[in-house]
Amino acid sequence: METPRLDLKCFSRIILKQEVLVRKLINIKNIISALLLVSIFCGLCSAVQADEGMWPLSEIQKLNLQEKGLRIDPALIYDPARQSLLYAVVEVGATGSFISEEGLLITNHHVAFGSVQAASTPEKDYLKHGFLARTRAEEIPAAGRTARITESFKDVSTEVLSVVKKKMSSSERARAIERKIKELAAAAEKANPDKRAEVAEMFPGKSYWLFLYTDLKDIRLVYVPPLSVGNFGGEDDNWVWPRHTGDFTLMRAYVAPDGQPAEYSLDNVPFHPKTYLKINPAGVKEGDFVFLLGYPGRTYRHLPASYIAYEQNVRMPAVADWYEWQIRLMEEMSRGSREVALKHEARIKGLANTMKNYRGKLAGLKRLEYLAQKQQEEEALRAFIQADPKRQAVYGQVLPGLEKIYKEMELNYPRNFVLENLRRSVVLFQNAMTVVEAVHERQKPDLERNIAYMDKNFARTKQRIGLTIRSSFYLPTDLAIFKELLKKAPTLSDNQRIEELSQLVSDGCNLDETVNKIFENTRLQEEEFIKNLWDRKPAELKQIDDAMLKLALALYPQYFKMEEANRARKGHLDELQARLVNIRQEFMGQQFIPDANSTLRLTYGRVEGYEPRDAVFCKPFTTVEGIVEKTTGCEPYDTPPALLELVRQKKFGRFINPELKTISVCMLYSTDTTGGNSGSPIINAEGELVGVNFDRTWEATINDFTWSHDFSRSIGVDIRYVLWILQELAGAGGLLAEMGIK
Amino acid sequence: METPRLDLKCFSRIILKQEVLVRKLINIKNIISALLLVSIFCGLCSAVQADEGMWPLSEIQKLNLQEKGLRIDPALIYDPARQSLLYAVVEVGATGSFISEEGLLITNHHVAFGSVQAASTPEKDYLKHGFLARTRAEEIPAAGRTARITESFKDVSTEVLSVVKKKMSSSERARAIERKIKELAAAAEKANPDKRAEVAEMFPGKSYWLFLYTDLKDIRLVYVPPLSVGNFGGEDDNWVWPRHTGDFTLMRAYVAPDGQPAEYSLDNVPFHPKTYLKINPAGVKEGDFVFLLGYPGRTYRHLPASYIAYEQNVRMPAVADWYEWQIRLMEEMSRGSREVALKHEARIKGLANTMKNYRGKLAGLKRLEYLAQKQQEEEALRAFIQADPKRQAVYGQVLPGLEKIYKEMELNYPRNFVLENLRRSVVLFQNAMTVVEAVHERQKPDLERNIAYMDKNFARTKQRIGLTIRSSFYLPTDLAIFKELLKKAPTLSDNQRIEELSQLVSDGCNLDETVNKIFENTRLQEEEFIKNLWDRKPAELKQIDDAMLKLALALYPQYFKMEEANRARKGHLDELQARLVNIRQEFMGQQFIPDANSTLRLTYGRVEGYEPRDAVFCKPFTTVEGIVEKTTGCEPYDTPPALLELVRQKKFGRFINPELKTISVCMLYSTDTTGGNSGSPIINAEGELVGVNFDRTWEATINDFTWSHDFSRSIGVDIRYVLWILQELAGAGGLLAEMGIK
Repeated sequence: METPRLDLKCFSRIILKQEVLVRKLINIKNIISALLLVSIFCGLCSAVQADEGMWPLSEIQKLNLQEKGLRIDPALIYDPARQSLLYAVVEVGATGSFISEEGLLITNHHVAFGSVQAASTPEKDYLKHGFLARTRAEEIPAAGRTARITESFKDVSTEVLSVVKKKMSSSERARAIERKIKELAAAAEKANPDKRAEVAEMFPGKSYWLFLYTDLKDIRLVYVPPLSVGNFGGEDDNWVWPRHTGDFTLMRAYVAPDGQPAEYSLDNVPFHPKTYLKINPAGVKEGDFVFLLGYPGRTYRHLPASYIAYEQNVRMPAVADWYEWQIRLMEEMSRGSREVALKHEARIKGLANTMKNYRGKLAGLKRLEYLAQKQQEEEALRAFIQADPKRQAVYGQVLPGLEKIYKEMELNYPRNFVLENLRRSVVLFQNAMTVVEAVHERQKPDLERNIAYMDKNFARTKQRIGLTIRSSFYLPTDLAIFKELLKKAPTLSDNQRIEELSQLVSDGCNLDETVNKIFENTRLQEEEFIKNLWDRKPAELKQIDDAMLKLALALYPQYFKMEEANRARKGHLDELQARLVNIRQEFMGQQFIPDANSTLRLTYGRVEGYEPRDAVFCKPFTTVEGIVEKTTGCEPYDTPPALLELVRQKKFGRFINPELKTISVCMLYSTDTTGGNSGSPIINAEGELVGVNFDRTWEATINDFTWSHDFSRSIGVDIRYVLWILQELAGAGGLLAEMGIK
Repeated sequence: METPRLDLKCFSRIILKQEVLVRKLINIKNIISALLLVSIFCGLCSAVQADEGMWPLSEIQKLNLQEKGLRIDPALIYDPARQSLLYAVVEVGATGSFISEEGLLITNHHVAFGSVQAASTPEKDYLKHGFLARTRAEEIPAAGRTARITESFKDVSTEVLSVVKKKMSSSERARAIERKIKELAAAAEKANPDKRAEVAEMFPGKSYWLFLYTDLKDIRLVYVPPLSVGNFGGEDDNWVWPRHTGDFTLMRAYVAPDGQPAEYSLDNVPFHPKTYLKINPAGVKEGDFVFLLGYPGRTYRHLPASYIAYEQNVRMPAVADWYEWQIRLMEEMSRGSREVALKHEARIKGLANTMKNYRGKLAGLKRLEYLAQKQQEEEALRAFIQADPKRQAVYGQVLPGLEKIYKEMELNYPRNFVLENLRRSVVLFQNAMTVVEAVHERQKPDLERNIAYMDKNFARTKQRIGLTIRSSFYLPTDLAIFKELLKKAPTLSDNQRIEELSQLVSDGCNLDETVNKIFENTRLQEEEFIKNLWDRKPAELKQIDDAMLKLALALYPQYFKMEEANRARKGHLDELQARLVNIRQEFMGQQFIPDANSTLRLTYGRVEGYEPRDAVFCKPFTTVEGIVEKTTGCEPYDTPPALLELVRQKKFGRFINPELKTISVCMLYSTDTTGGNSGSPIINAEGELVGVNFDRTWEATINDFTWSHDFSRSIGVDIRYVLWILQELAGAGGLLAEMGIK
């Protein structure tokens, strides 16, 4: 599934842009397949078009969307002067949208998952059985959930880049930009005390936009389908078509009686959005034009072939293998104990999600021979640069410079792999390193700190540690992962050597004994113990007798150095990438749009199936009969008996799909989406809601690098299934009325 | 894949007939889907029709095949007075067909597999690299292979049933029929010394036909594709669509210079068949009418619901689980040793083939709710019987009688499972029991013996033991299986108890010690030791100090009793089934055709895709691009580089599929096939060869019980792929010329 974006550590989003040459290269094939599909399967539909692109709203007037199938004025989607659809779309971890004037919101079940879990108890297991608030008073606070509305944005590239001086080192450059961005955001928040401000890199090193947001803080659960509907198919079906998941949830935003954002309070009243989406209960049909608004996280379409080579040959295979190893370990550890299994459940889910995504990308890269295409494009670009001495002078070092950086990353990968994964995968070491880093960072002025330790974020950083210990820490697993990583230390080449780890596993030592000793002599699984460490000074920390903490302290300089190197590299990369974008635009005679960066975007396409492999055609709609087909009675295919009965009786009523003569469940469409687009409204040519986006097909994981009309399909819940579930399974007639469904 | 039929032990084939009511029940759905498919995907093709039925050739005049799409006179397929297509089709383990006047034969790679393996050496590995005889002299004998031509058949029901007397017990009845059949066959062979005679049960207990066959005994390999073509996809793709296996092989039949069948000799000359199939190098297209001739093994369409319940709830799940357990064991044992792995390879392949087939059938039974349909039909039949006192008197006890038998089989299943699988899965016990049984049976007159020990078969029975020891016996696996079965002995209820086994594992005993002791004190893995036992008398056998032999002797009475009970049951079943067929025919006002029984049959349908599950449509042709897509470089996806290069260069030439603009590899069609149809010629409306059948889709494993137009698809190699491989990969222009391809 699409991962809800991480709020923390998003600071240095590398922000890139759509791949145009590749599109050109495969365009003819696309057109032929599109025409073929249209003529064979959809003789009646008008000639609507799908295209690459997660478009910033500022760009959509250039798109001629009406030529492509839109039947409303594009200004109704985004016009700073009007109540446009823009204001109906919110960021709620991923994406959601308002569907009533009373602040009713629709998003994905998997996006709201954490809130539903937090609201559940063994006695009232809303996650398992679902939840319906029959009155406003019954609506439950969605703990920690906010809904962010994009209010405005403006280009601040000149201000940001004004701090860059010629003589700066790459590291100084990066640090200067970082600081300027923080200053601009702080100033904007001071000027707009009810808003949050964020500066987003649009093209790294080249363009920066300041976004103003309203963050609604009192969000409540209104309707949650049972897990066996909202998560039907579970991990098995993740990234898979055909899909039958009712991945939607309804929430409601509340504000203070004066209309201002406020934390949860009984006095709060439903939020009245500037605009909301009207629902079309007739849905869409094959071939129809649709578009999505949402907050896609990250794409990497403007990076060079050397980056793709690094991802394809080095990083992704290593991470996928490592996650697979961890999954097997956790499954092994979980065997026989439900309690232990629960500790691992969310971690396995996360690891498997990424692993499956990476394997999908690797298969997609191979399928499209993308690296070779990219290299071919760059050959032509090199020739173009060399053909003109002026261009050669300005751009001659761009591609070689980028190649050098990725080569270096490849060389350093084994070492960084150990350091990064020690911190990422070993909970006790992560706790120790967070404490050590916090204690050092908190010595600096607020704006100088690593973002996790800035005053506005520090409380969350501390909370998160407690949450991890309580929800997913299991000592034997932690120990096994630590040992596995430690084993790699002696295999590092001399210039990669991590002295502090090598010493631990030097010839004379018994690995098991060493590891056990560290785990026996640490208290970093105790929240109370950690609580007492946050406010220490660096020197005081050294006095504490805790083996894991001592290891973290010993390794801290390594991590500090790694972070500094990353910053310097980012500075250098930004500079080279900005120039690469410039020369590629010149070469191709075309303006690019920036890569996804968790800011609001539009993507359009049409409802259509695809051929994932030879002789297999995936149709664009699944049906409730497919649910019956998959149902085994065991999780994740344990359909509620009441739903099975509805299908058996063919109680399809007014939400029937007239072409298929049944209820359609999920659908495929050729939009350009990535993680963060979870929950995005699927909107028809008239600007009405016809579904909720929640995933991509496995073949579409390649979207992070490139978009392909042959393979890139997004997956959404058909609004008719949503309405049918609400009416027939939940008996939520009141909500249907609120949405204007008569 | 379709299993080549077993020649041995085929005697008591239960021979049944097609399910007509079920067809009626689902007919409307079929017609709608057929029309829909036709109209959507194939607007241009003429309205050809697919239908259930593996038709004996005597019945085809009733079929109105010309109305269904055939464009030649049906008499050209079968007319005893003419050189009809019948004589082009041979039984070669499964099915094959003549494709030149010089006795050139085409069948499946998997059918010829054993012969190719036997002809291979580590130096000349024809299995791996393929084989092409550039001259007749280079053709290699296909060891043990025969090609059987059906010469004629006649109804001998009256003669066979004349031996049944009213006062006979079920066992006596079965034995009398068994003997009569052997006598009729012996008499026919005496009258036709150059022919083989076999009596086949058409409807058990009701009708019997005597077939006369010509068995050609000098069969030679002419062309074998490399394993990476002929077995592309291996076990992974078995029963799977989309398929890309070039599952074909060319052989040639030779006879003595006088034209008579003869064993291999250098003096032999190519056989001139009465007729052979002309190849149409233009192939077929979606929607085209096709028919198959072949030797389908067994179907079970006329058995009652109580039989389906027994298969679905008792036997198939138990066997599938047991085979899966064995596969896991063998894989575990094979880990780390290629030599041990080779011992298990064929066994795993066989077990997996059956397991996957059973799982497919179980899924299909569930998908079609077949048991409920069958029960519903029988409810109506019961009512029909009860409505008339005369019918009640004659048929009132048929369904209850059958129910009682299958209930009893269910009750005895745990006990019989242990006995049957001891013999089937533990090689040393199998050897011991074969010796014990042979020594007892060989005391009787030839015609009275169990078929494996009749003079004409005994040599093969003995050979087979040696072959098993040499090719697939691995002691630790044998021991583990034995132990697993022994563990089940104490779990049997009191009335199921197998005393001789229970004693071995009684309370005081250590199971490991017991089993080890038996395996340490047996020589039944030594061919020389076994060789000395065949001619002993029963009393002598008892003197031999061999633990496994002693166990087999102790258990022999149990096996003897089981066989007697099986025979008595068969007698009783035959009688009831014959009556069931009669009353069902009366009830439905329709004549049935017999179930498949390894005799020559015709089935027809059309080239068409299907929807195996919700939202997935499988197209009817795969392409060489799909081969590239699946190729990993590792077995079973290790396509020859030369083939990949041909695809890359698009060297498609004259065998191109004009609709797909590439070479099509495999195809789907809605004929009614089962095991034994492997190698069946796929013949177009003009009577020309357009492909070679080799498998069914996973959903079509249900064919053994019923045929479904929605799900029953057979899989064949497109003749254009065969010709393309011969021309481009093998450079076998001479063979193309011989087949009349200019």
